[in-house]
Amino acid sequence: MAVLRKDEFHLPEGIIYLDGNSLGPLPKTVMVRVQRTVEDEWGEMLIRAWNDADWMQQVTRLGDRIAPLIGAPGRSVVVGDTLSIKVFQALSAALQLNPHRKVVLSDSGNFPTDLYMAEGLIDAIGGDVELKTVAPEVIPEHIDDSVAVLMLTHVDYRTGRMHDMVELTRQAHAHGVVVLWDLAHSAGAVPLDLGACRAEFAVGCTYKYLNGGPGAPAFIYVRPDIAPDARPILSGWLGHADPFAFEPAYRAGDGIERMRVGTPAILQMAALDAALDVWESVSMGEVREQSIELTELFINQVESLCPELALATPRNPVARGSQVSFSYENAYPVVQALIAEGVIGDFRAPNIMRFGFAPLYIDEGDVRDAASTLARVLKDELWRKPEFNQRSLVT
Amino acid sequence: MAVLRKDEFHLPEGIIYLDGNSLGPLPKTVMVRVQRTVEDEWGEMLIRAWNDADWMQQVTRLGDRIAPLIGAPGRSVVVGDTLSIKVFQALSAALQLNPHRKVVLSDSGNFPTDLYMAEGLIDAIGGDVELKTVAPEVIPEHIDDSVAVLMLTHVDYRTGRMHDMVELTRQAHAHGVVVLWDLAHSAGAVPLDLGACRAEFAVGCTYKYLNGGPGAPAFIYVRPDIAPDARPILSGWLGHADPFAFEPAYRAGDGIERMRVGTPAILQMAALDAALDVWESVSMGEVREQSIELTELFINQVESLCPELALATPRNPVARGSQVSFSYENAYPVVQALIAEGVIGDFRAPNIMRFGFAPLYIDEGDVRDAASTLARVLKDELWRKPEFNQRSLVT
Repeated sequence: MAVLRKDEFHLPEGIIYLDGNSLGPLPKTVMVRVQRTVEDEWGEMLIRAWNDADWMQQVTRLGDRIAPLIGAPGRSVVVGDTLSIKVFQALSAALQLNPHRKVVLSDSGNFPTDLYMAEGLIDAIGGDVELKTVAPEVIPEHIDDSVAVLMLTHVDYRTGRMHDMVELTRQAHAHGVVVLWDLAHSAGAVPLDLGACRAEFAVGCTYKYLNGGPGAPAFIYVRPDIAPDARPILSGWLGHADPFAFEPAYRAGDGIERMRVGTPAILQMAALDAALDVWESVSMGEVREQSIELTELFINQVESLCPELALATPRNPVARGSQVSFSYENAYPVVQALIAEGVIGDFRAPNIMRFGFAPLYIDEGDVRDAASTLARVLKDELWRKPEFNQRSLVT
Repeated sequence: MAVLRKDEFHLPEGIIYLDGNSLGPLPKTVMVRVQRTVEDEWGEMLIRAWNDADWMQQVTRLGDRIAPLIGAPGRSVVVGDTLSIKVFQALSAALQLNPHRKVVLSDSGNFPTDLYMAEGLIDAIGGDVELKTVAPEVIPEHIDDSVAVLMLTHVDYRTGRMHDMVELTRQAHAHGVVVLWDLAHSAGAVPLDLGACRAEFAVGCTYKYLNGGPGAPAFIYVRPDIAPDARPILSGWLGHADPFAFEPAYRAGDGIERMRVGTPAILQMAALDAALDVWESVSMGEVREQSIELTELFINQVESLCPELALATPRNPVARGSQVSFSYENAYPVVQALIAEGVIGDFRAPNIMRFGFAPLYIDEGDVRDAASTLARVLKDELWRKPEFNQRSLVT
């Protein structure tokens, strides 16, 4: 339990929060940090804060704080924009590194925005580039010399199934394929080693396991040796080699700096900065060890108490992230009833109940309580209440 | 002075702030609103806030609050991302509405990121689309049937020179040209009437005259009748017709909704929401009237007190925004010395001193004091001190 940090988070009374894989809870240090940025920096320094509070370099500093969590070297990561934008940016640069090939290979379990952004890009650049999606388990069979870019999400948002990042990257490289990993459900959840894996690009999210807050910026990694050849389609002024020279033509900045686009969201950056503090004192290896214990326990408990549910997550812990999903015909109302009973998980269409286990603020007692509450919701058929069967906008 | 709202802003002691055209000052209601979002919504509601605090529709609600300030109808504006991203989105959609033409016409005074983003887009889509930039004053001569898109910034960031939006749009339409206006230095500064002007696209910024805070989201307007034909190159999941269906293929949402991309920056949205309150009680016509009085006064004062400075802004108030610029060989150190004396303006390369006049928090006394301080900095050669001659990162 060396990684448990419950008292560093604001956890609402009477709630067991198993949805940190969607939006991490509020770290207690965030409010003070945001207040300082609003009142002391924006309020008092005004425009001078770009220099005096070093707002200008914050996206690079935050990138350097995330780098060790994903096994990346310093100055290879910047934060900014949304994950959708970063996928677009990375995929465009990846395609330009392999201009004579026409296939972007992904899997059908990829998070839709990754596929949608690829669609938009491919539609715009024309030519005959094709987005090919196959079932996750047959990805290896489809990696061949026709593929320009392999674009995968490491941990599946629905099932929690985890790809073998090192092995798939190795296979792809053997065929001259450029590799782009989406680490949305991995960063802060499982140990990552981008340095060893040698993938060219990675993108990720900071509002899930990293607890950066709603709408926290995304991050992008570019392998340092290829960064000078990465062409930024989103060639914004803050990625320019000399933004304040206001030159008429774009010149890409050094290395990862070119992946900056527009003016960064300073309040979100402040929240993220505070949220990253907790990671200074935990090891991702220990987080992973504890995460496996929690997910094993949850699977065992639910399978023994709720035989009507079918495990949708790989049983082998090596093949899953920090999330456990069950499929069930009435998944939607069951999740709503569970939330009403104080256990927050979420639903993903068509029939998935999803539970995230973040060892920084979830312990074995929470897991046992969550499983027994789920069993009670099913046994007492609490989910049959009409209010749990009305679909809300966000599910 | 009916628009003066000094006590609604946090204005640091001893400072005259003439840089609201770069970053507006802190509205006093912002901190409470941000705190509520962090503590009560993120902290207590957690993931449920997407429904219960209506985070999901906030970008549309904020668009509807900005719409009256730019003369746009309801449901024609959404906020999100950065201005660079919104330029990219709008220009791509504009080009696709005029697929047989190959020229994007802009002016050499446009803000560089607009030109850079156009460069990146054009480079990626290939074909033989060309970005043609000409001097601002000769734009009318270059509007012809070869032009696909006219992309202009309404008010020049350096000189404050303002294009005739209605007349240029009319001319462009007479030649079948699609029009995209960047309103970064116009929204909240001058009255705008997108409905009457009939431009197809507009984008803008909320951290300047709208005081939304550092890194506040941009906005995008699409004329409602053409929105159904606007193709979103940045086809993110929140622009999908049914984001939570998680369909494998992209289907663009209704109207302006399709211009949403990824997960919105909720803390920035909260700050912007509070910042927009002040606009409920002022008329843009009155703001403009007062702005002209302030800029006239500043020009007169500076020209009489500082003959060594050359006015870089049009003398005719109809032809300028809410900003006054002077050129001077030693503009950089003069601006630094002026800031040290408590008058914050800014410098733009190579030799421009820029002063923004926001009648919500600047009055005639401020203008007179600013002009006399500038005169003193010049007369006493305060700008010669070595510390004012070292260039900092952000100028």
